[in-house]
Amino acid sequence: MPGPGEFELIREYFSSRFQTGARPGSAANTVVLGIGDDCALLNPPAGKTLATSVDTLVADVHFPANADPYRIASRALRVNLSDLAAMNAEPLWFTLALTLPQSDPQWLAPFARGLAETADLYGVTLVGGDTTKGPLSITIQVTGACEKPLRRDGARAGDTVFVSNQLGAAAAALPIALGEMVGTAEQRQQMEAAYYFPEPQFAVARAIGNYASAALDISDGLLADLSHICEASKLGAELELEELPVAGLAQSMNAECNTESALETALTGGDDYQLCFTVPEQHLDTVDKLNLPITAIGRMSAEPGIRCRLHGNPWQPRGSGYRHF
Amino acid sequence: MPGPGEFELIREYFSSRFQTGARPGSAANTVVLGIGDDCALLNPPAGKTLATSVDTLVADVHFPANADPYRIASRALRVNLSDLAAMNAEPLWFTLALTLPQSDPQWLAPFARGLAETADLYGVTLVGGDTTKGPLSITIQVTGACEKPLRRDGARAGDTVFVSNQLGAAAAALPIALGEMVGTAEQRQQMEAAYYFPEPQFAVARAIGNYASAALDISDGLLADLSHICEASKLGAELELEELPVAGLAQSMNAECNTESALETALTGGDDYQLCFTVPEQHLDTVDKLNLPITAIGRMSAEPGIRCRLHGNPWQPRGSGYRHF
Repeated sequence: MPGPGEFELIREYFSSRFQTGARPGSAANTVVLGIGDDCALLNPPAGKTLATSVDTLVADVHFPANADPYRIASRALRVNLSDLAAMNAEPLWFTLALTLPQSDPQWLAPFARGLAETADLYGVTLVGGDTTKGPLSITIQVTGACEKPLRRDGARAGDTVFVSNQLGAAAAALPIALGEMVGTAEQRQQMEAAYYFPEPQFAVARAIGNYASAALDISDGLLADLSHICEASKLGAELELEELPVAGLAQSMNAECNTESALETALTGGDDYQLCFTVPEQHLDTVDKLNLPITAIGRMSAEPGIRCRLHGNPWQPRGSGYRHF
Repeated sequence: MPGPGEFELIREYFSSRFQTGARPGSAANTVVLGIGDDCALLNPPAGKTLATSVDTLVADVHFPANADPYRIASRALRVNLSDLAAMNAEPLWFTLALTLPQSDPQWLAPFARGLAETADLYGVTLVGGDTTKGPLSITIQVTGACEKPLRRDGARAGDTVFVSNQLGAAAAALPIALGEMVGTAEQRQQMEAAYYFPEPQFAVARAIGNYASAALDISDGLLADLSHICEASKLGAELELEELPVAGLAQSMNAECNTESALETALTGGDDYQLCFTVPEQHLDTVDKLNLPITAIGRMSAEPGIRCRLHGNPWQPRGSGYRHF
């Protein structure tokens, strides 16, 4: 039996949940016209710079095709919002380009619910989209407004490198997320949080906005992403690995191996969506007093490349981050 | 041999061709930061409304997977720009989410060239994107600025229905585009133009911006798309099919059948990206004097549904437009 046509499908699952003006927060009253015309019409907040980012999640590349659609939607939107957070932008709007093998209400209903609940949580409004037939993939573009954007290219030699929260949980979670292993109940819960409900670090970004010299979110692994700050700022970095905040899940999943395997996971594993940022010396005291969930892990240096030390001894990871091809 | 990694790939094929500020036109100086950070940073033109639209083209659904990548890029961007034109918005920025089975320079080089040349032609700037591994598909989101948006919901009963240029060429071209038939040299040339180089109707939209009551672009077939104006405006329409401007290709491809087959193609075939719009009676004389490539084909009416007449006799098409699922 064929599913509903594209227009009924969009109307039923998205338009009704994302009525213009129905979302809370300030984003809703910037939407002149939402889903359903050739374009959405939007009034950007006066005097602010727009920040926009697009990410595609492909089934069986970025998430298991048979994963719970509610969780897929949560992950897809959160991963995109993380880019706004990393730029210190406040979320306004997003669009959804959804490619589906078939129009299946059993899949669409929880997906739309996951999307709507995540959007509500972060005060971002769905303003348009496209639904096409093909192999499952999800492209979301988020747009936000910012006054003090945190770019990658502002670091200076001597700036301290920080990361938010812990690293390595998402990469450690992968074997459980993929069903390759079961894990303990606690590990499954940590996997769930790390992999499907990563938290865009808006609060940290807002707090450090006046003090950080550069920032990004860690999507491809700390070493790979820090190297983008290094390249954009034409610098290198020295990391003290004993300072690295390794997530409990990375420790417990690597318990049978050793501490260095957990370190490796925290350094090179992707998908954590924590912030990595740099702070000039004159702001270190102020940032310290903000009581943020952040850890200083090293310093920017004039010499290109990233050098890791563990208790003072040079330490070389085996991998350097996720490659998309 | 593995292709280049994602970052080298993006840098080589896109960043170098789409340097911030390197594009002509006014869009370039609204770009604070283009490709390469977590987000693009954009300064929207003061006092204008933004219009944004996203479309996905999936290989072997929306274009033949083995088609020339230059032509695929042209079609992908033009189809998206058509939504801006239909809203009477001037193009500013676009993003590209590209999913590729492998990182293949033989494919990427002509694709990037097609995208850059099309972008130049319409004065739109690539500001960001994502490259992922998976089944070939292209998602483009375009954003423009408008002062007098042309929505779907402004038509009134008695307004005259117009279409721009001719209809049916793209649908008639499909068997040639898919390689199912060869066609004459002239037909192949017309296929090329209709299918891979559709022209977003910016000039027509700009000219009618002050006079039209509703507008959209015809992507799914005239009947399907006009029904969106009808629904949004809570009206119906009466069409006089002898007025319908049927494209030469639709006529020549249906020559062995009959005129009614050509009419059917023009009424229900998708992918033409011509405008369909409505004009209130008091503006008809003014619009007539603009000497635009447009044709009056009927009127909006209070009675819901679309009724077609051919030389005064009721006429019922077999299909009603493209269904995506």
